[in-house]
Amino acid sequence: MSATTIENFKALVKRMKQLEEATALMFWDLRTGTPKKGVEQRSEVVGMLSGDQFKLSVSEEMGRYLAELTQPDVLETLDEITRASVLERKKEYDRSKKIPPQKYQDFVVLTSKAEYAWQEAKAKNDFESFRPHLEKIVDTVREFIELWGYDENKYDTLLDQYEPGMTVAKIDAIFAPLRERTVALVKKISEREQVRRDFLNQEFPKADQRKFCEFILTQLGYDFEAGRLDESAHPFAIGLNPGDVRITTRFNPNDMQSSLFGTIHECGHAMYEQNISKDLIGTFLATGTSMGIHESQSRFWENMIGRSREFWSRYYDDLKARFPQQFEGVSVDEFYDAINLVEPSLIRVDADELTYNLHIMIRYEIEKDLINGNIAVADLPRIWNEKMEEYLGIRPENDTTGVLQDIHWAGGSFGYFASYSLGNIYSAQFQAAIARAIPDYREKVAAGDTSELKQWLIENVYRYGKSRQPAQIIFDATGEEINPKYLIEYLETKYESIYKI
Amino acid sequence: MSATTIENFKALVKRMKQLEEATALMFWDLRTGTPKKGVEQRSEVVGMLSGDQFKLSVSEEMGRYLAELTQPDVLETLDEITRASVLERKKEYDRSKKIPPQKYQDFVVLTSKAEYAWQEAKAKNDFESFRPHLEKIVDTVREFIELWGYDENKYDTLLDQYEPGMTVAKIDAIFAPLRERTVALVKKISEREQVRRDFLNQEFPKADQRKFCEFILTQLGYDFEAGRLDESAHPFAIGLNPGDVRITTRFNPNDMQSSLFGTIHECGHAMYEQNISKDLIGTFLATGTSMGIHESQSRFWENMIGRSREFWSRYYDDLKARFPQQFEGVSVDEFYDAINLVEPSLIRVDADELTYNLHIMIRYEIEKDLINGNIAVADLPRIWNEKMEEYLGIRPENDTTGVLQDIHWAGGSFGYFASYSLGNIYSAQFQAAIARAIPDYREKVAAGDTSELKQWLIENVYRYGKSRQPAQIIFDATGEEINPKYLIEYLETKYESIYKI
Repeated sequence: MSATTIENFKALVKRMKQLEEATALMFWDLRTGTPKKGVEQRSEVVGMLSGDQFKLSVSEEMGRYLAELTQPDVLETLDEITRASVLERKKEYDRSKKIPPQKYQDFVVLTSKAEYAWQEAKAKNDFESFRPHLEKIVDTVREFIELWGYDENKYDTLLDQYEPGMTVAKIDAIFAPLRERTVALVKKISEREQVRRDFLNQEFPKADQRKFCEFILTQLGYDFEAGRLDESAHPFAIGLNPGDVRITTRFNPNDMQSSLFGTIHECGHAMYEQNISKDLIGTFLATGTSMGIHESQSRFWENMIGRSREFWSRYYDDLKARFPQQFEGVSVDEFYDAINLVEPSLIRVDADELTYNLHIMIRYEIEKDLINGNIAVADLPRIWNEKMEEYLGIRPENDTTGVLQDIHWAGGSFGYFASYSLGNIYSAQFQAAIARAIPDYREKVAAGDTSELKQWLIENVYRYGKSRQPAQIIFDATGEEINPKYLIEYLETKYESIYKI
Repeated sequence: MSATTIENFKALVKRMKQLEEATALMFWDLRTGTPKKGVEQRSEVVGMLSGDQFKLSVSEEMGRYLAELTQPDVLETLDEITRASVLERKKEYDRSKKIPPQKYQDFVVLTSKAEYAWQEAKAKNDFESFRPHLEKIVDTVREFIELWGYDENKYDTLLDQYEPGMTVAKIDAIFAPLRERTVALVKKISEREQVRRDFLNQEFPKADQRKFCEFILTQLGYDFEAGRLDESAHPFAIGLNPGDVRITTRFNPNDMQSSLFGTIHECGHAMYEQNISKDLIGTFLATGTSMGIHESQSRFWENMIGRSREFWSRYYDDLKARFPQQFEGVSVDEFYDAINLVEPSLIRVDADELTYNLHIMIRYEIEKDLINGNIAVADLPRIWNEKMEEYLGIRPENDTTGVLQDIHWAGGSFGYFASYSLGNIYSAQFQAAIARAIPDYREKVAAGDTSELKQWLIENVYRYGKSRQPAQIIFDATGEEINPKYLIEYLETKYESIYKI
């Protein structure tokens, strides 16, 4: 009896994954080159297939399989992958089933309208016009939390969506020292002489940028037989299946940084997905285990490798050979300093490695208070600006470059932002573990050999996909729970050196 | 009651079309750039979605709707599009339902194996190893014909799949004069001095070929807001929806003809699909009405426009500007002659405009006799070579360049080949009608203005999609039934001029 149920469950999950793959290809195509006049029709097809997938995820059939397979005596007989797959689907099923379909439908409509209103409001610096939309969204999210349930803190339920097991209590404890030390470091840096970066803003022909990006991708171990590089307005990585993980970038003709580091960032996401165990194909475990662990990989490769001294001691000559005029008379040290320039700025997505976490903390603190009803939507512009001044020492002149800058809240995404900083924290913790396992890994990076490094990540992180929880991966790979000290040490060491503090 | 059935029928058909669109995008991606390691998994997704579509097409639900909607008293109350859509689906339903699922499944397996065996046989010039596969395929196709039923000639049932309403009786009558006059003309040409074409086989940088192709596409009226140009090993056009009709080409660095005329050919197919009435979206009428009419458009634009004197009197200077060295000292007349060079050759896909139809007739005659049991598979190599000698005056030295050259039979496609020549015949008939409607259309082509021409085709052919049968389109557009005299006259006038006969 159970054997048939297992097979039926697997077949149903596989079918959902196939629907997801077809939808993902359409999504990729929409972002990289669907002809304008075909978009409307294509969007309907995306809607139909993703609707099918959702219906299967909460179907009576799925409910029956899950009820049987999650019986303790059945669950313990399942192999590790099947058990993880069952539990993953059960969590999704319960979460979706707790929201009445009409309420969810209303929320989709609400956020669609809100995204449009947000665009208008941002363009016109008019928070008031967006406020009623955001109020409704926050109210609905709070209703959802009541339906989903929560233990300690209402906001935990939202965090858990993106970072399973993460809580306000944990993040508060992690972010506090990081915030304190970062604010202090940023202040010290502001008192030092700023580094040069004028040479980064010259003309860099797109075709040359592309060739250099392709070269670096190959050097880092991105597998072009299991992926491709395309262009899109907003760079992303997308895993259609582990044999087809695509990345996109955008080429700014006056700035080679954005394509280069954007590409390395997406390469980190993509290498994670390319190296998930083939045993997980056909299940929803064939993806990254959480937003934070995913982000740890994009940040690790972008910042800890791609913005390291060792990396450029190896590749700066290649860069100069590709752009001889642009880097004439610029030393590798000057280049290294330039790509690591620290400067408090208003916009999160343009922030440097150090100040980035402060942008995240502002959002995290606001979300936490909003969801717990401690502050009101109407107060957001004031609170935002106060926190910017407190943490970064600058104050937005308007809401367009302040509280209105991100689309996330208009889309109803609360609980997501923290993942970015969790990713940075994880990445430094992984780096410390790598340094213990491969003591000469820096010399290897300087020799252009990242293969052993990548292999460590495959064995300790990538291959598991979502079959293990983030906390387990961190503990098994690094020997301890999430710990911000590695990131703090890394940032202080790096930036004290650059700014001669 | 019927109103609900109509809505349900439309929704079901729309859903099938959406599945088809998702599958088509995956097909396009597989041909243009799916990473190698992602192909196997992607193919499974294609199989799942196209299987879903097929199941819906023969579902009990579809059967119920069709039974009700095809009642004469109901049918006559339907609007024109819905009626055409119902009849189109009914034809597919009946055709599919008549083949027992297991028999169809076996045929799919048989042809998959046969395609593999054909590849081997072609590579090794070993017809005998392919013979048993082809025998089984022919036997199965003949069984299918018995299940489908037929009126006059068994082969009619196969022709009807690709060219609704076409029969052996009609084609025999059409092909006979075309064959006779073509054979005579080819013989005369062989006695004249051959034209030059050495200058076409030089180095043509790929990027320049691409730019010229894009220029010509825009000039002809291909809408890049409703399509895109990519590369693939075998060029094709694919209509995902009327707002997204993509074409592909291949760039041979030593031959600008293949990309240029290949692109114009696919442009003809694509302009047809781009200009189908938006009213047909969501039905299976939103495509070309038949293979023959589709091919008439690729051939019309490729040969009657793209290989015309008028066209090059306008664009040869642009071509020379793009490739000044390659065409130095080559006059427009020499260029025109070169792209229209006639020479009997062994391979259909490389054949010139004139001899191409003879290649088709050989295949048509063989298929007709095979299906009617007048010849045996074992006789094919001999018959093939005899016909090549009779019609083209050349004899293949082996089966690789003879009877084994095409994949069609290995895939079980019988009845398809005739469409290519029917397309040529239709295209000349359309051209004659255009000459009556727009007497100065040649001057307009010479002035680079094909818009009126295209508009005539939109109004008389494209907009109807599959909502009208090919015979009706031909009759309404040209005032008569299919008539080979226009193609014969066109070919004789054109080639007698080039070869000074």
